[in-house]
Amino acid sequence: MNNFVYQNPTKIIFGKETIGKIGEEIKNHNIKSVLILYGKGSIFKNGVYDKVVDSLKANNIQYIEKGGVKPNPVLSFVRETVRLVKRNNIEAILAVGGGSVIDSAKAIGAGAVYDGDIWDAFEGNVKLSDSLPIFSILTLSATGSEMNGYAVITNETENKKWAFTAGLSSYPKVSVIDPTVQFTLPKEQTVYGAIDVLSHIFELYFDGTPETDLPDELAEGLVRTIIKSVKTLIDKPEDYNARANLAWSATLALNGIIGAGRNYGDWATHSIEHSISAFYDVAHGAGLAVIFPAWMSYNINLINDKLIRLGRNVFSHDINEGSQTIKQLVEFYKSIGAPVKLTDFGIQENDLNKLADNAALQAPLGALRKLERDDIYQIYSIAFKGEY
Amino acid sequence: MNNFVYQNPTKIIFGKETIGKIGEEIKNHNIKSVLILYGKGSIFKNGVYDKVVDSLKANNIQYIEKGGVKPNPVLSFVRETVRLVKRNNIEAILAVGGGSVIDSAKAIGAGAVYDGDIWDAFEGNVKLSDSLPIFSILTLSATGSEMNGYAVITNETENKKWAFTAGLSSYPKVSVIDPTVQFTLPKEQTVYGAIDVLSHIFELYFDGTPETDLPDELAEGLVRTIIKSVKTLIDKPEDYNARANLAWSATLALNGIIGAGRNYGDWATHSIEHSISAFYDVAHGAGLAVIFPAWMSYNINLINDKLIRLGRNVFSHDINEGSQTIKQLVEFYKSIGAPVKLTDFGIQENDLNKLADNAALQAPLGALRKLERDDIYQIYSIAFKGEY
Repeated sequence: MNNFVYQNPTKIIFGKETIGKIGEEIKNHNIKSVLILYGKGSIFKNGVYDKVVDSLKANNIQYIEKGGVKPNPVLSFVRETVRLVKRNNIEAILAVGGGSVIDSAKAIGAGAVYDGDIWDAFEGNVKLSDSLPIFSILTLSATGSEMNGYAVITNETENKKWAFTAGLSSYPKVSVIDPTVQFTLPKEQTVYGAIDVLSHIFELYFDGTPETDLPDELAEGLVRTIIKSVKTLIDKPEDYNARANLAWSATLALNGIIGAGRNYGDWATHSIEHSISAFYDVAHGAGLAVIFPAWMSYNINLINDKLIRLGRNVFSHDINEGSQTIKQLVEFYKSIGAPVKLTDFGIQENDLNKLADNAALQAPLGALRKLERDDIYQIYSIAFKGEY
Repeated sequence: MNNFVYQNPTKIIFGKETIGKIGEEIKNHNIKSVLILYGKGSIFKNGVYDKVVDSLKANNIQYIEKGGVKPNPVLSFVRETVRLVKRNNIEAILAVGGGSVIDSAKAIGAGAVYDGDIWDAFEGNVKLSDSLPIFSILTLSATGSEMNGYAVITNETENKKWAFTAGLSSYPKVSVIDPTVQFTLPKEQTVYGAIDVLSHIFELYFDGTPETDLPDELAEGLVRTIIKSVKTLIDKPEDYNARANLAWSATLALNGIIGAGRNYGDWATHSIEHSISAFYDVAHGAGLAVIFPAWMSYNINLINDKLIRLGRNVFSHDINEGSQTIKQLVEFYKSIGAPVKLTDFGIQENDLNKLADNAALQAPLGALRKLERDDIYQIYSIAFKGEY
């Protein structure tokens, strides 16, 4: 096991009928005004907005609102909202939504206390450590952003979907996770969310760190729980136990617990996928369903034993080759309605060079091995065919 | 899964050669003077003391010292040290040791900022929420105290071994866990430490909460890791990987992660054991090795299915009865040299009434079911024979 530092100060309030607690939590931080940030407006249909506003009013917290965060959240929106926050002397950001809203909140929160342009931090030109306090009400379990300090934003003019953190200050002070809010999600959002979570676990699990017995046990427990929960939710979207197990799995997958002791993940697959959703506005989870099996296949010589271990502990005791685990994973993704090849997104073979050029902007990618442009191209080629 | 609130602000610094970081961490909290608290003095033999003092000096942190914390730490020592801390205007407590030292530090830290007697908080007569900052250097993985807010202290004049917390203020700000420090532990300390950890997991696992898929997966992963690590350490006490996996398992077992979503544990067995070590100065882990199988056996009708699940996922796929899991657990404890019946401690059958009376002071005990004095006596009787 590697040496590590683990610290995660986020307070999680989890369960049924918990959204109404947010006002008191914000008041306990001596905050008197917030920006309520949200996406396309589903929070008006599922009752979440009303609960949030009632709770803020009951605790005498002033608020302004800003909707319209996109699924792949964009920099222009972040910049515009930073100006809004500064103009109104807002003291904290309350994200009400999924990972895209929470990620935007983190970028806005850090941007509001930074004199320059927040994209500087994404480019690595400046290291930030301060932010307005972030609070979140989670409405879609996927990115794990509710309990970590990272944000991924797309610079849409430069086609860069990149990550940043302002350290501990980017961790939400409080995140409320009420799984019942997710009862009414469209099926594909549940599925793509779950695939995003599984992909986070795979990034960590396959990062090449030796002797990670305990982190691997925890990771495999999460994978089994997620697969079981998704299978249930396909038919029973209002099964509370499955929603709760999936939601808490999503949070734990990327809150640092299963990453501690490792090389902190490979993350090449995420970068390779980000280039797809930077150009095509494909759901992140859908892109990952296509790219991860291709990445595994390209690197099979390095991870064959680990694939066998995963396969035996998750799919079947009879697995003897890593390729069987990849096949089982792809079959599982097909069974829950996920795409498994790039052509499913309308991507043509002559688009692959453009994608490889874009992903290679941050090359070399990965920790297991360093991927250069040609490796990345090969992985897109495998994903283009989608045959395992 | 139950609703829950999870928050754990402790910063963990884990791995080889990490002890020297403590001075800078304390300095980062603007603290200029600490009490170094320790036990019987093993820290002078294994080099830990020198590393701690060098790190404090390098960061210009003043310190006084107090040694002599006992394995079952006592109230008189806590009271005496509270006076010492107050006299010297100490700003923080640096615990260097195992759970008994860290628990004492928490009681001293809270006692130093409370006007009354700290035992008030153990009796439940006052609810504290303030403490001097606590830091720890862990030298024995067992209690999990390095990453939670609880402390267990024995009031030796009243034979009460009870727990208290001052909430978030009792969580160590920083805990340093260097597994190499534990290379030189006597074998029985490793064994009893591991049994303590397993018992924490069992308290949570068998607390009767329905639908705990994910917490159970995590718990079983910890149990497998602990059993595997201990088996290795019996023969190879300097196996770093086994030490690291056992140490991190011990921390995660009681930092709230596997308790979230449950009834927060049964804890009857711990109370029943505490009465033994209040009278006989038996190692806590040794007492738990004897009591937990007896508790399981007494409650088998309520936990038979869960015992079968645990047995299959930890010991053997062939297990079909809960009693087989209990037998396997007892055999494992025997194989690593742990006691399995009360007579191993020199306890006589006519002592059982005294023990039951003592444990019943806090009755009813437990969450799975409420145990009254007669139930407790029956459990002692089963543990007296130790036949499963």
